[in-house]
Amino acid sequence: MFSCVGYAATAADARLGPIKLDRRDPGPDDVQIDILYCGVCHSDLHQARNEWQNTIFPCVPGHEIVGRVAKVGASVTRFHAGDLVGVGCMVDSCRECPSCREGFEQYCEVGFVPTYNGEERQGGGITFGGYSRAVVVDQAFVLKVPEKLGPAAVAPLLCAGITTYSPLRHWKVGPGQRVGIVGLGGLGHMGVKFARAFGAEVVLFTTSASKVADGLRLGAHEVVLSKDAGAMAKERGRFDFILDAVAANHDINAYLDLLKRDGTLVQVGAPETPLPVSVFSLLMKRRNFSGSLIGGIPETQEMLDFCGEHDITADIEMIRMDQIEDAYARMLRSDVKYRFVIDMATMPESV
Amino acid sequence: MFSCVGYAATAADARLGPIKLDRRDPGPDDVQIDILYCGVCHSDLHQARNEWQNTIFPCVPGHEIVGRVAKVGASVTRFHAGDLVGVGCMVDSCRECPSCREGFEQYCEVGFVPTYNGEERQGGGITFGGYSRAVVVDQAFVLKVPEKLGPAAVAPLLCAGITTYSPLRHWKVGPGQRVGIVGLGGLGHMGVKFARAFGAEVVLFTTSASKVADGLRLGAHEVVLSKDAGAMAKERGRFDFILDAVAANHDINAYLDLLKRDGTLVQVGAPETPLPVSVFSLLMKRRNFSGSLIGGIPETQEMLDFCGEHDITADIEMIRMDQIEDAYARMLRSDVKYRFVIDMATMPESV
Repeated sequence: MFSCVGYAATAADARLGPIKLDRRDPGPDDVQIDILYCGVCHSDLHQARNEWQNTIFPCVPGHEIVGRVAKVGASVTRFHAGDLVGVGCMVDSCRECPSCREGFEQYCEVGFVPTYNGEERQGGGITFGGYSRAVVVDQAFVLKVPEKLGPAAVAPLLCAGITTYSPLRHWKVGPGQRVGIVGLGGLGHMGVKFARAFGAEVVLFTTSASKVADGLRLGAHEVVLSKDAGAMAKERGRFDFILDAVAANHDINAYLDLLKRDGTLVQVGAPETPLPVSVFSLLMKRRNFSGSLIGGIPETQEMLDFCGEHDITADIEMIRMDQIEDAYARMLRSDVKYRFVIDMATMPESV
Repeated sequence: MFSCVGYAATAADARLGPIKLDRRDPGPDDVQIDILYCGVCHSDLHQARNEWQNTIFPCVPGHEIVGRVAKVGASVTRFHAGDLVGVGCMVDSCRECPSCREGFEQYCEVGFVPTYNGEERQGGGITFGGYSRAVVVDQAFVLKVPEKLGPAAVAPLLCAGITTYSPLRHWKVGPGQRVGIVGLGGLGHMGVKFARAFGAEVVLFTTSASKVADGLRLGAHEVVLSKDAGAMAKERGRFDFILDAVAANHDINAYLDLLKRDGTLVQVGAPETPLPVSVFSLLMKRRNFSGSLIGGIPETQEMLDFCGEHDITADIEMIRMDQIEDAYARMLRSDVKYRFVIDMATMPESV
């Protein structure tokens, strides 16, 4: 065991603050990582505030981790000290079920081990995330990060990136398709970038007139203001695929109606209460309403490699560790372009 | 023009009764059909009672029509007097949009012409359905019916049959798959028969203990009582595909949870109000919630041919035309095994 400093919520109504963490010494298959940057996902806030009623305190959030390998266990051959690496939302899974064997660890039938607020499989207690100076992760859940990309802007690829990349790939989005991205936040801005990179005709839907110019800059061919009923009506039946990144409750039928026959709308944001779906809209054009959860390890590596080849990263705002509460407050106002990333050099050296 | 007798609703609250109808003389592409049998679909009742607020009175329902060709127009080569033929839910469509060109007339982007309560495309007024002695239909919307099948039991194939056949084919249901059919009514009983014929392992879900034996007789390998929470829990995550034929509002999430990763639930019943869908259930296993509407003309012919080869027809109860109101009342109590079919020989000869 070794100690390092992290930033934790100690109760649902407590401000996050420094805490001394114990990390396991790397076993034969482990990679010990000095964390450089960690992205701030909306899930971090939900978990820290116990909004899903399952938080184990103290809770150290963070699952968009980029760092350098400090040391490796005896059986680790793919990583070496000094390598730039990433860790996303998962640090383990059963590795035996059909989903795991097919590289879909996110759909592990036993349940994957989340990077924070999870139970270690080897009886090692509760997982602590990336708001920390260091982390130890089994090599099977460590990703190689292309050196040519800015490492801070890579961090959000580990969750926001793969969450949008995976469904766009699974449903084979590409040239000749008209693709909608709903919502311009952490997920949505990556959805726009990937859909454009895959060759689709990209239309961003946003409620904010102030985001139109940015949507175009990020790669959208068109931006539609979703509050403009006339503009929405013109888009009916025109889309092959829609990626909906809105986590709040919203009128999903307004977007289902934009799909062509056999089109698919994939929800990647997760509203807390069930969404009323008009079956009529599904029936009349054999439309599909689907969901998708992050991505598996092989696909996450594929995404990072793709980003390296195409020079794709997230648009970020860097913060100091002690600005995390302000960052959460701004996230709640959707006031971030488009992901906060914590510079881990600003973590206190001791508690 | 020629006259024939039909049975019509003249107002939402009126009992159906005989009416004199004018039918057009067959044009070059038309087939004039002497109707032998017409199935009774729940849509007939909705339309007659103006429950969709769009009924044009008088309304002659009926879109599960089997009859014999009386005469054909000069350009008709595929049909001859005396042929056994069928007409389903559609009598025309634009024939030019991508859906029509691909044989998906049910998804015609202009809108197909329904067999009753529709507007004829050639300015011929309102369509009247199969509760009638005769009908004249463009040859492109007439189906060949295998002579070896009982014609009365074929009638429901034209709507209940194709509505279940089409999604089972589109989503490639077959051997090695565990397939659920929800609801044992007109649609559901055909879903069980087709899923079994396609080689799947078929599980029927029903609320009625009284339907268990019948479900097994019709071809289900297992029957699960959906009110039995323990039995439902055992089925979680076990299904490749579920066909939901329940038209009433019901808990769709209870069935979405039964799907494996990448499984699909297709709704063919159309509840009037939106169904609350748990996005979480879709996300956690990349599940799909989809809809499907009847089937195109080429696929309807394929289905009839398949039924001929595999000796598949509907389980029916024959009624006289003047029993239609009793039949509607029994349908509302789900008291029918599993489709009423009107013997058109019982239609009055004159009004």
